[in-house]
Amino acid sequence: MPELAVEFWFEFGSTYSYPTAMRIEALAAERSVSFSWRPFLLGPIFRAQGWDDSPFNLYPAKGRYMWRDLERICADRGLPFSRPSVFPRNGLLAARVACRFARATWLPTFVRAVFRANFEQDLDISEPGVVSGCLAAAPGEPAAILKSAQTPEAKAGLRAQTEAAAQRGIFGAPSFTVGQELFWGDDRLEAALMWASERAVRANS
Amino acid sequence: MPELAVEFWFEFGSTYSYPTAMRIEALAAERSVSFSWRPFLLGPIFRAQGWDDSPFNLYPAKGRYMWRDLERICADRGLPFSRPSVFPRNGLLAARVACRFARATWLPTFVRAVFRANFEQDLDISEPGVVSGCLAAAPGEPAAILKSAQTPEAKAGLRAQTEAAAQRGIFGAPSFTVGQELFWGDDRLEAALMWASERAVRANS
Repeated sequence: MPELAVEFWFEFGSTYSYPTAMRIEALAAERSVSFSWRPFLLGPIFRAQGWDDSPFNLYPAKGRYMWRDLERICADRGLPFSRPSVFPRNGLLAARVACRFARATWLPTFVRAVFRANFEQDLDISEPGVVSGCLAAAPGEPAAILKSAQTPEAKAGLRAQTEAAAQRGIFGAPSFTVGQELFWGDDRLEAALMWASERAVRANS
Repeated sequence: MPELAVEFWFEFGSTYSYPTAMRIEALAAERSVSFSWRPFLLGPIFRAQGWDDSPFNLYPAKGRYMWRDLERICADRGLPFSRPSVFPRNGLLAARVACRFARATWLPTFVRAVFRANFEQDLDISEPGVVSGCLAAAPGEPAAILKSAQTPEAKAGLRAQTEAAAQRGIFGAPSFTVGQELFWGDDRLEAALMWASERAVRANS
């Protein structure tokens, strides 16, 4: 099927990436749209805009709103939520794992486990022990996976993916790309899937 | 009916306020939710965050995205859209009119006419002649309305409303308040109406 797939760009420290990560797989399947997991780092993206912290910390009114908005969204969807005691948490190690193993069958389960650790269980996802605990669905030893995710090649892979995000015009997370089209925010997931699905129909007809 | 009404906070220069202004009256009526028009100025709100321009100009990646996103939204809804040659346009005079005559029966028609002037016809809405042209539905002479909107009391009224917006935690437009709850963005209009409507049901039951 000549379908324009959706690229799902996310960062483990990003608040609105959490509800998206929890629902994208089911929703994309329901709409018969394929997608790929694209972890990246917001830090370099934010620094390029002159920010040395999350805009939700730099702009308190926006931050207060975001926490309440996220709480409402999670309540609406029956998604557990507990405001992390540290924000934003450092998702570097988890992102390296997700980037290195982006096509593994256990990857979606791992991604959701990391988001739940951060936004439901208030765990420090920068800790190797926490990341290991999120690898329950992966075969073999978590230590071997962490090691493989921290080789120079794996580190370079995540850097390249973050640069690719910037090149696509991405300035926040979650974001979705469908060909040249960019969509930003959990509230644009439906539009991104629709965009991909309508183009697939046209390509087939 | 003991209903928590929605306050619709908008700014005539604000891009995403345009699609909301064009649909809020019909959507609120359909859902039997009452709402009030609350024009305010984003300038003082942005300056309090350290911005001397729209964040869409200050952060080019965000701005590029916004224009494309708005274009897609308008296309989806069959809403005419032409990117204004000047952004953001100065909506001070129109906001003073809208604030002074917020409860007039012709107000919704005026508000939509100003937004269309800015985002469909690319007219300079800071011009008294353009604002006058948007007053076709109002009784009497446009000049008398403009004069009434520029008395010291009318000017103070808009200043007070902008301060009230800041006090409610508003940091952008469009925004919606329902009691203590704040919603931000055209994409949160449905949630704001739902919030008001569910509370009204509870208050009645």
